[in-house]
Formats: sequence, C-alpha cells, structure tokens
Amino acid sequence: MMNRLRLIPALLLAALLTTSALSVQAQTVPRIERVNPTNWWVGMKYRTIQLLVYGPNAGTLAYTVNYPGVTLTKTHTVENPNYAFLDLTIAPTAKAGMVKLVGKKGSQTLSQPFELKARDKAPKGQGVTDADFIYLAMPDRFANGDPSNDKFADMADQTADRSNPFARHGGDLQGAQQRLDYLKDLGVTAVWFTPVIENNQPMTNEGGAMRSAYHGYGFTDQYNVDRRLGGNDAYKAFVQRAHSKGMKVVQDAVYNHVGINHWFVKDLPMKSWLHQWPAYTNTSYRYESITDPHGSEADRRITTDGWFVPFLPDLNQTNPYVANFLIQHALWTVETFGVDAWRIDTYLYNDMPFMNRCNKALMDEYPRIHIFGESFVNNVVDQAYYVQNTINFPFKSNQPGALDFVLFGAAVDALKPKETNGANRFYTALAQDAVYVDPTKLVTFLDNHDTDRYLSVIGEDVDRYKIGLTWLLTTRGIPCLYYGTEILMKNFRDPSDAEVRRDFPGGFPGDKENKFEAAGRTDRENDAWQFVRKLATYRRDTPVMHHGKLMQFLPQDNVYVFFRYDADKTVMVVSNMGEKAIKVDTKRFAERMSGMKSARNVLTDQTITNLDLIEAPAKTALVLELAK
Amino acid sequence: MMNRLRLIPALLLAALLTTSALSVQAQTVPRIERVNPTNWWVGMKYRTIQLLVYGPNAGTLAYTVNYPGVTLTKTHTVENPNYAFLDLTIAPTAKAGMVKLVGKKGSQTLSQPFELKARDKAPKGQGVTDADFIYLAMPDRFANGDPSNDKFADMADQTADRSNPFARHGGDLQGAQQRLDYLKDLGVTAVWFTPVIENNQPMTNEGGAMRSAYHGYGFTDQYNVDRRLGGNDAYKAFVQRAHSKGMKVVQDAVYNHVGINHWFVKDLPMKSWLHQWPAYTNTSYRYESITDPHGSEADRRITTDGWFVPFLPDLNQTNPYVANFLIQHALWTVETFGVDAWRIDTYLYNDMPFMNRCNKALMDEYPRIHIFGESFVNNVVDQAYYVQNTINFPFKSNQPGALDFVLFGAAVDALKPKETNGANRFYTALAQDAVYVDPTKLVTFLDNHDTDRYLSVIGEDVDRYKIGLTWLLTTRGIPCLYYGTEILMKNFRDPSDAEVRRDFPGGFPGDKENKFEAAGRTDRENDAWQFVRKLATYRRDTPVMHHGKLMQFLPQDNVYVFFRYDADKTVMVVSNMGEKAIKVDTKRFAERMSGMKSARNVLTDQTITNLDLIEAPAKTALVLELAK
Repeated sequence: MMNRLRLIPALLLAALLTTSALSVQAQTVPRIERVNPTNWWVGMKYRTIQLLVYGPNAGTLAYTVNYPGVTLTKTHTVENPNYAFLDLTIAPTAKAGMVKLVGKKGSQTLSQPFELKARDKAPKGQGVTDADFIYLAMPDRFANGDPSNDKFADMADQTADRSNPFARHGGDLQGAQQRLDYLKDLGVTAVWFTPVIENNQPMTNEGGAMRSAYHGYGFTDQYNVDRRLGGNDAYKAFVQRAHSKGMKVVQDAVYNHVGINHWFVKDLPMKSWLHQWPAYTNTSYRYESITDPHGSEADRRITTDGWFVPFLPDLNQTNPYVANFLIQHALWTVETFGVDAWRIDTYLYNDMPFMNRCNKALMDEYPRIHIFGESFVNNVVDQAYYVQNTINFPFKSNQPGALDFVLFGAAVDALKPKETNGANRFYTALAQDAVYVDPTKLVTFLDNHDTDRYLSVIGEDVDRYKIGLTWLLTTRGIPCLYYGTEILMKNFRDPSDAEVRRDFPGGFPGDKENKFEAAGRTDRENDAWQFVRKLATYRRDTPVMHHGKLMQFLPQDNVYVFFRYDADKTVMVVSNMGEKAIKVDTKRFAERMSGMKSARNVLTDQTITNLDLIEAPAKTALVLELAK
Repeated sequence: MMNRLRLIPALLLAALLTTSALSVQAQTVPRIERVNPTNWWVGMKYRTIQLLVYGPNAGTLAYTVNYPGVTLTKTHTVENPNYAFLDLTIAPTAKAGMVKLVGKKGSQTLSQPFELKARDKAPKGQGVTDADFIYLAMPDRFANGDPSNDKFADMADQTADRSNPFARHGGDLQGAQQRLDYLKDLGVTAVWFTPVIENNQPMTNEGGAMRSAYHGYGFTDQYNVDRRLGGNDAYKAFVQRAHSKGMKVVQDAVYNHVGINHWFVKDLPMKSWLHQWPAYTNTSYRYESITDPHGSEADRRITTDGWFVPFLPDLNQTNPYVANFLIQHALWTVETFGVDAWRIDTYLYNDMPFMNRCNKALMDEYPRIHIFGESFVNNVVDQAYYVQNTINFPFKSNQPGALDFVLFGAAVDALKPKETNGANRFYTALAQDAVYVDPTKLVTFLDNHDTDRYLSVIGEDVDRYKIGLTWLLTTRGIPCLYYGTEILMKNFRDPSDAEVRRDFPGGFPGDKENKFEAAGRTDRENDAWQFVRKLATYRRDTPVMHHGKLMQFLPQDNVYVFFRYDADKTVMVVSNMGEKAIKVDTKRFAERMSGMKSARNVLTDQTITNLDLIEAPAKTALVLELAK
C-alpha cells in the first residue's frame, strides 16, 4: 500500500490533506530522485542555500558533504520521510566543481552529485526601465517554430489542437525567436512571455467548463522550461538571441500557487507546504481587507490563503522551506537563463514578508533587475501598498515596480465609445502619483491576456486606438503592448479568456495570412502597425521620452495636454478627445512653452510655426517636439 | 475726487484694482475709525499681535504705546495711507486694562483706546469628538426668534421675504436657542451653524441668476455677528445656553474669501490683499493639480487664487498682513464667544502654509479644539492631503479633522434606488482609512447645505434612509446631521441651492405646521424622528460607540456586517441591503463574536438568543449589543 499523497482530484485534495496521516514505508530502500535547485554557483551573494532532496525515504539518510569551502550546516527532516532539506554554506573562496552529497543509512551509502558552477559573464538582470517598450506574448499562441514539440506522449495534456480554443496550439520559443526581428522593427526592446515553466497539467472538461493548461500559470516542475516550448535550452537560446539584438527578456514568475500536477503536490513534504482548509476554500479575489485598518483577519486569510482555483494549490510561503525553495528558484532562473526582469503573477495573494525577502534576494544579486507584480486593483491606495510607496502602511513593500492597473482602467474607460469626459479620467489617475516612491517604474498597458482586448473595448475605433497608444508611448512609466494589438487583434473575454488569446496570424504552419509581414496585413492593419512603430521608435530614440519629467494640465473642452521635458528637449502631447477640430490656445502652458517658437509633429514630420494657437484635429493626439 | 476703492460691481473690481493707482488726499486730517482685533486679552499664548488700524490717513500717523507690559515693536505702513499695522507684544505680566494707542502727525495727536481684557473662565474650545453628534443648521432657515431683526434699513439687503427662496427668511440665533431642548432631546450634542458673521451683501438678480446673501459665506466685517441673527450678544448668549445644556458649538470659518461689500475690499490696504488677475478669473473648482506631482503651477494658481464667485473676493493669505488678520480673528472668536470647534469653509482653496499656521495658533491656544475643513473631493488621496495623513506629500497638513466627503459620496451612492452593490461601496470607502493619521476625527454626513438632500437622493425610501442613518450613527467618525433630515425634509439642488435650504416648519411665526413637536409631525415623520433619536441617544450613552474600534467584514450577498468593540462591549451592525430577508451565518465573524451568547437589538429592545444564524430582514440594519 502506498501512503504517499498521489495525484487526486483537485476538490478532494485539500480535504484529504487535512485528514490523512503522513507516514512511510520504513522498509523502502532510500533513493534520491531530485535535488533542487539543480545546481548553484560559486561567487554568488546568496551563498547559504537550502537543498531540497527528494526520493523514497531520502529523509531517513544521514548526510555529509566533503568539498572545500562548502559546509553542510544542518539537515532538516520533515513530516514526509521522502524529503530532506540540507542547509549548505558556500564560502566565497569555494571553487566551481562537483559537490558530492553523501547519504548514509546503516550500511547503505548514496552519493548524489551537486554542481557548483562558475558564473558566466553573459548579461543578466539588466532590468527594464522607462527607456524600454515591452511586448507581452503567450508563447503557445504567438509562433510555432518546431511542430515536433507540440505534444509529448508522456505528458498529461494530449490535446494539442489549434481548432480548440482551450487546447495547446503549439507555439514555442523557437517560433518567437524567429520573430525577434519583427519585434525589433516594431520598436520593441523587451519581451515578456506568460510563464514558460513546465505545466504538465491535463486539459479537462468539468461539466462544460474547460480547465485549460496552455496558459502556463500551473507549474509542475520549476526547474524545467516546458518541453512543448522547447525546454531549458530553447529558453536560454532565446534570451541569448534577444540579448544579441539589444533586447531584454522579462520572466513571468508565479509564487502563489503551482499546478495540481506538481510533483511535490503529489507527495507533499509536510501538510503546511500548502494553505490548508477544512473544506476547499477559494480566494475571494478581494483585496480591500489587506490594507483596511478595520479589516478582519478572517477576510485577509481567505484572500491570501484561499486557492486561486481548485487546480492551482496555494503555496504557504510562511513555511520557511517553501520560501527558500521559491527564492532560490528565482535566483537560479536569472543566473541560468540571463533574464532581465521579473513580472510576478497574482502579487497581492502572496505573503508580503516573503515577497520582500524574495525581492531583496533578487535585487541584492542583480542590482539593476526590475520587478513588477500583478495586483489587479482599482484604486491607487491598494496599488501603492504592493510597491515602494509614500504611505505609512504598517507593512512596507520593497517592490520597485508594478503593473499599473489603475492607469490601465482609467485609459480604457477614457476611450470607451460613449465616454465624453475621457481626458479627465486619464488625467485624474496620473494626478494621484504622489502615493508612489517612483511612478516611472510602473509598467503601463492597455490590455493583457486577462482582459478584453483594447481595440474591442474602445469600439474598434482606430482614432481612439491611436490616442490610447499615444498615451501609452508618451506618458510616464514603462509601456507594455499585448501581442497582436499592433495588428488590430480584437475580442472580449466573453465567452472565455481564449477569445483574447488567439493565435498570431502567420505564426503557425499553414496559416493563410501572415501578419508578421506588411504584405499580409490589410491597409488598416498596416496603418495601425506603422503608427505603433513610428511612436515606439521615436520613443526609443528620444531620451526625453524615457527620463523626462511629466507635466500635465487640467483637461479643458475634452482636450488634454501634457509635456515630457528635460533640460534639452520638450515634447508636447495634445489629445483632442472631441468629435470636432479645435484650436488650442497655448497661453496657459507657458510654464513649458515659454520661448518655444516652432514644433515638429513627430507623427507627420510637419513643422508648426505658430505655437500660440495649435490646431488639434478631432479625435487625435498630436506629439509635438518643440524648438526654440 | 475720492481716490479710495469703493463699492463697485464685482466683475469690474478685479480689473479696476489692477489699473488704479492707490493714492490719498494728503490734506485729509488723520482719523482712526477701526482697530482690529477690537480687543485682546492678557494671559494668551498668542501675545504678539498685529493691530490693523484704519481711518482716513491713519497710516500717516506716528504711533506710540505707553502701557506696562505692552510694547509697540513696529509700525507698518502700506500702499494705502488709510492703514497702519501695529505689532504689539504683550508680556505675560501685563494686566488687563485699556491700552492707549497714541498717533501723532505734526501738531495733531489722536488717542485710540484698545482693551486688554482678562480671560473669563467659561468653557471654550472644548472640541468635538466621536462622542458627539453634530447638527448643522442654516440660522436664517431654522427658527425666527426675533422678527424685529429680520432686516435693517441701513443694510444692503432689504429683501427679507419668506416667499422668495433666495431672500433672507428671518431665522436667528434667538430662534435657534429656543430649539436647543428640541435638539438635545433628539440626541444632538453640538450645533454647527453656517456662518453667523455679518454678511452685509445685497441680494441681486443678475440676468435671472439670483445672487443670494442669506447663506453667510460673504463676510463684510469679521468682528460683528450679523445683526439679523442677533449680533454678537445673541451669539454669546447662544453659546452660553448651549454650554449650560452640555452642548457644544461649532463655528463655520471662512478664510478664503470675503464678501464684495467687505469694508476693506472697498478700500484695499494694498493691491496684494486680494488675489489679483489681469481679467476676472474664477477658480476651476478642480483640486487634482494641487496634489499631482505632475501638476502645473498655472492650474494650481487658478484653483487656489481664482475667485470662488465674482462677488466673493479671494484673500491672499501669503500676504502676512492678511494672514495675521485672519489668525487673530480666529483666536478672538473662540475667546470671545466660547465656541468649541472650527469648521473651515472651502479648505482646499486656501494657502496651505497659512492654514497650518492658523490651525497651529488655535490648537496651541485651545488644545482640545477640533478643526475640520471642507474639501469637496472624491478620492481619499486628495482628501488625506488636507488633514493629518500618512502619505509623504511634500506638504504636511496639521489639520486634525475634515468633513469626510469620500464617505459621504460612498454612503449616498450605496443607497441610491437602483444600486445593487451598495454595501460594497460603503465598505470599500472605509477600507482606505490607512491614509489618515486618525480617521475617527473625520466628520461624517449624509447631506449638507450644498448637496441634494439625503432623502431625495435615496428615492425617498425610508428603509434605506434608516440604513444610512444607522451607518452614520454607528461607524467611525463624528456624525453630523443636516437640519430637517430627521423630519424627512427632501429636495434636490436643482433648480437652486435654495431648494435644500427650506425653512424648518414651525420655526417661523405663522407657520401652519410645527415639526419641532411630535403632534405636528406625520406618523412617517415621527417614525423617522424617533429612529434618529433612538440611535443618537444610544450612541451618546454608549462609550464603545465613540472610541470603540471598528472591524468590518467583506459584504456578502449584499449584507454588510461591522462591529464596534472595546474591552467591555461589542456592538454588531448587520445591514441587509437586499430586498429579501436573509439568515446570516455568523461563523466568519468569530474574531468578534467568539464567546458571545446573546444579543439585544438596540432599536427594538428584543433579545436574540441564537447568534449562529441571525435573521436580517430585507432592507434593514440591525444594531445588536452582544453579550457573553
């Protein structure tokens, strides 16, 4: 009889865990099947690591290490005898090489190699800043470079099928790598993929509700990039190729939960590895109680410790073994693949002291790295809580950036078809930036894989589309484009997320259209594409659009004017949200326009010689580089 | 030819001021007509005062003072020779008495008495706290105790006429004083009148737009309470009578502007006494740029230095003479009348360093005084800016309290007829309290003289009315009721503010109905009145409802549950916003209910013995005092 926790239906797991006693077959011969992290390096700042050693009765062995500069300071055993946690300290003087972990039990001796590598000199943790333009793609839906890896017989999901919106479609890192020139041409400087780590999860149909496995947010083994995306080698190659083109890569990290098929969920080290509930408890998805001085602990626990969905078990990061596991994996990932920045999924659902510790480890090791979490909130107070902020909350976050969901909400509300006060919505959202230590580190966006597509939200109005993109590419922050927005991909999330995660046309074998190339795009699509390119490359090549200060003026007559400026240059953005052309009297902008004599319209390259009254066509944003 | 600035049409004044040269008739014999403050006291902490001395050529005199312990340290002359500003220092040892200000010019000697009074022991500056329940009334519209003072032939407004909604109606302090027992019976502990200071302004009809003068926000002489309300003596008597009944009085202060008929506006001390503009400039009424790190100085200036309306000239508080004048008047008012707290009109339009200085002077002199300004904003970040807050704004406000416009907005939105997610709106507003140093010092309300009346906003639904009043009287903060809400007075501001400022029935001679008495009220009105009384007196007599902590839970099924609690007592408020009765499972409230065995329904005095499932009737808020 096997006493291990095995793969069990999601809804039963939590209940089972609370009642089952963890015991072992004492007679099993100890064996080591896994060591995580799979290697470490000499010369890291983070040099006290905790190895998770896993295998039948691996926790019953007595471990020793004999390697110059490496000390095994403690071996932890836990409830499940199949685990041992070894605390290793690596001296600054230690040399690269193969460390032997020796495990003994009675007459048996096991020897497990663990490599200490030399660090390579390749760029890593370069960060993304407001000089960058991020492109977010779902690797399964972007481009398929290797149809031979679309599915594997030994994996849980056998449904690779482009005709099924919930199934895997076969996109991979090789395909994306082939499109790096496309992205570079568009003006993109950084690529963020939804998670690339192994998701060996089944696709299931639960009473008509599809449980998809292609999205990547249910890890089953942190130390493997999904083979269907190309595996670790393909990811490393992608990052190297991107770096060689001067582009950066953002890793999508998930700490809050793993997939129900994760190997350690099938045989939990201890009950407290996961957040356990007497009966299955979903998160409320409500964040208010976390920052509420009047909030209840009961509400907070449901938010942070309730499960995101039944098939994504919720990790307990207050468990120090879990915390160590996750932090080491983060560092391992940057060091192994050379990624530059760190996007953190479901940030607010994590344990905040853990997040600070994890962020600090990354920032200590890679001082230029950028970290920006996803906290899908609708007000600046709650958004500020999860990032370095100016509010004296009892908890102080050290996260440098965040996805700016507040500005996202304001931008799309501002541009909705019947909105007549749109300029004001965008203006007022930015006007609350005093709550952030540095709002220029926020990542701005108009849509993503969890939202309605931008073009659909704004009624497929290309004039409004251009206004929103102009804001994205000219206001403060680090802009991020969701794949396909540049070719006018559309759709609402209704009936399912899959609607906003359609394949990029031309990325897959047999595609009739190829929208990666101008010839494959319609005139309307090319117009949009060229618009994005024009602004993105202008931004890329114009330092004031990165670090320049922002000054915005109260919208009047639905015209919104702001400036980016530094000692050398001033760029004026005039957004006429109205249905009629208007002549904008510029007297009230004297703080930024004094002494300016002419302007170049960045989008048309026309010169304007009278700056007293600027003609702003209906539903248009002008980007004007001012000159003395 | 007279060169003084005289009473002129409002729209011309600003323009005129910018072009007219201030000069004087040098031949006029100097005379002193006014000294402000009109007296001071010995034994004040604020003992370096600046006397404004006014009269024809009063600024051409050489002043001396010869009084033990009083030193004239400096005489300031300004652009207009009709003013002198005398800096006096009053030693702690100075005795009460009549100081002579001696002014000499050539052979002429003027002697002007200035009294230094002994301070009386009457209560003053007692503050209002969350133990209080404030009642806001417009004295002209509440009760007329002395019809002989309804108008005066020597004043600008001769239109006292109850049939005209824009005219003065004759209410006065004597009338209000006669209703103190009514208020006390209702559970009120503090009275706030809209301003009582002289408003010798005309009522005008400008192209159909009525410019009213009854509201009190256009001062014409700070040192006189309006004679039509009874003058200084009546105000002093009112405060004394209120104090004798254990009630407090809140002064409505206006620093931002004065009436166009103010005596010093007719003969400005200097051009910079007011905010001057090349052409008349109204405030934008927009506050965003003040807190916006990206805001422009141009927008800020229009907000704070633009005039509120053309007939309310905007004082320049960065002018030190103006600042001294206003601060001294504030202290003089508390010391003279014994008022207990300070409501500040249009707080955000003032100069913030001035406000801090003024608040500090009041708080230094009267450590228990409470100050709460009106900043009509719609988000907590902007609201927090004007009160002691936890945000690291470049400017730090020292104001202890504020009118809570954010919670007001949430409460009335929550209770609007078609709102189905109302509980959530109220909950989420309170959940952002982390931005305040002490949210219990905010003054909460459901309507006021500038808003639609509460009952109308909520569709005249008495069930919802009771829910909102329950929140007002049981949640954190200092509750404030607008006069007439207790007798179901209604109306929207459209077509004019006068609609929400109707006379209290029974307060005026000849009224057919008297709703100050139960017999004059309908059953529906008595039901509402008794409801307010029941809760207000419960609150008054139950300390946990003052200082008890608040804990609120995430609304579920449109049921909102919160608690007030301390070491001795726990009160539970269950608001079922839905149209159906519901049994509320209380398991999730264990943090506050653990060990509780029964409850008393405060509104019905019924006892509940099963706390596991609490029956919450449709559209009802239960107030339950829990017992072990």
